[in-house]
Amino acid sequence: SSLMDCMINGAGSVMTEGPSRGKRHSLSHDAGLYQMISLFIFISGCGSVLNVKGEVEMDAFVMDWKTLATGAVSAVRDIANPTQLARLVMDKTSHACLTAEGANSSMPTLWSAKLSISINESHPYTFHICFFCFCFFSTCRGKMGTVGAVAVDSEGVVACATSTGGMLNKMEGRVGDTPCIGCGGYADNNSGAVSTTGHGEAIMKVVLARLILFYMEQGQSAEAASDSALAYMKSRVDGLGGVVTVDPQGNWVARFSSRQMAWAAAQKDTLHYGLYTGEHFTQSIDEPH
Amino acid sequence: SSLMDCMINGAGSVMTEGPSRGKRHSLSHDAGLYQMISLFIFISGCGSVLNVKGEVEMDAFVMDWKTLATGAVSAVRDIANPTQLARLVMDKTSHACLTAEGANSSMPTLWSAKLSISINESHPYTFHICFFCFCFFSTCRGKMGTVGAVAVDSEGVVACATSTGGMLNKMEGRVGDTPCIGCGGYADNNSGAVSTTGHGEAIMKVVLARLILFYMEQGQSAEAASDSALAYMKSRVDGLGGVVTVDPQGNWVARFSSRQMAWAAAQKDTLHYGLYTGEHFTQSIDEPH
Repeated sequence: SSLMDCMINGAGSVMTEGPSRGKRHSLSHDAGLYQMISLFIFISGCGSVLNVKGEVEMDAFVMDWKTLATGAVSAVRDIANPTQLARLVMDKTSHACLTAEGANSSMPTLWSAKLSISINESHPYTFHICFFCFCFFSTCRGKMGTVGAVAVDSEGVVACATSTGGMLNKMEGRVGDTPCIGCGGYADNNSGAVSTTGHGEAIMKVVLARLILFYMEQGQSAEAASDSALAYMKSRVDGLGGVVTVDPQGNWVARFSSRQMAWAAAQKDTLHYGLYTGEHFTQSIDEPH
Repeated sequence: SSLMDCMINGAGSVMTEGPSRGKRHSLSHDAGLYQMISLFIFISGCGSVLNVKGEVEMDAFVMDWKTLATGAVSAVRDIANPTQLARLVMDKTSHACLTAEGANSSMPTLWSAKLSISINESHPYTFHICFFCFCFFSTCRGKMGTVGAVAVDSEGVVACATSTGGMLNKMEGRVGDTPCIGCGGYADNNSGAVSTTGHGEAIMKVVLARLILFYMEQGQSAEAASDSALAYMKSRVDGLGGVVTVDPQGNWVARFSSRQMAWAAAQKDTLHYGLYTGEHFTQSIDEPH
């Protein structure tokens, strides 16, 4: 879908195509967001942490409830953007998740079969007016590196994407929360979308993303639901983490029980961002001249 | 835990040790259950379906909420009982899921490090009084073969285990619902335990096992919650499946939207079993002489 295109490839397009493409890439003019986007791409691939054997194995997950579609890959190697491969699993197979060597060996076939999923001139969306909200986080300190994003478009369609290299010194073949649907992310037009980061094993035990959306289905706001679920994870399994959450009306939050989580959100003409608890900076997203 | 031991290895012990071990293996006297147990073990390993390359790749998942523990393996090969490997992941690593070659290559280390998890003379449980309920299903018709079990012990501790070879002609590396926590199974002493079977991709989209327990947390019975969630999966993503569900009080159900699901349950001195919708046969579990 177009929303998913924007989420996965929009950032890359901004970087490679730059401001010369005019208004629809105006977000690239913002240095803060540019840095976040760079980090997003870095962590998504070459910035991943190493497992005990010194290898990079990555997990990724995408979900786009407009088409009831999900895609995930776990323990894949030698790929710059595992989220794109998860997207291919979603679009080009009848499966929801491929793992390890099987996922890697399917890549050439999936890739050649893929439709263009890059933003092009005929794309109906422009980058800063296509969303009610585009909110993402990145964590690259210490033992983990995960990036996640949620978005809702002007029709109330929600989507999420999460990508990670997992945790440092993980065992070969370790799969964390990211590719596990409902844990690393979930998207449902009836309630919203969530992407998560933190201690994967704890996130899995409480099925964190789906838990937040259950709370929202019961009437809680995105913020209350996110805080409730993070508090539950802390008390029940002693786990810390962070989430970005949106509802179909475009209300978004970035919440975390960890000491910090780098996050940013674009909504209308304003960029929001923060790092430590309580931080919430805003600045105007300048139009290109 | 002892409950998990019974679930994973109890069936095998019944088969190999037989009635000579006396009262605590008295369930082996029942031919119907014996057949179910045989099927359980067969499907768990050598009976698995083949992927497009003609290979066997299996997924398995265990969860034991007494210790807040989970373990899963996906796309593992050359192992007779993937559920036991999932158990080793749970007991012997800091991770919740290992996949493919990484999981396989870790097996010797995990195996040598394992404590005895077989039922032995000093085991505090006997096989037919240790449970309020031990309920399992097996599906081996057509394109899929999955076995799952839920149990609750006399202290109200719940556990679940699910094992599958996936779907016929799946892509190499395809991971279904089984090892995905909350999809193929979930166990929580506050609400109950669920193990699922059916179309994995549909089960994943609705996070079926966790959904049933959410309904139970909201006050629904195990039966109503199971039916509600299966109906939701049918209407939302057009998916069919089956579940076994227990609550901490020992109330259990086997429910399915598919045409059939072979299931059996042992509670007190009665064996319950069925295959088609509405079938519910019972017979006494004879004591050994």
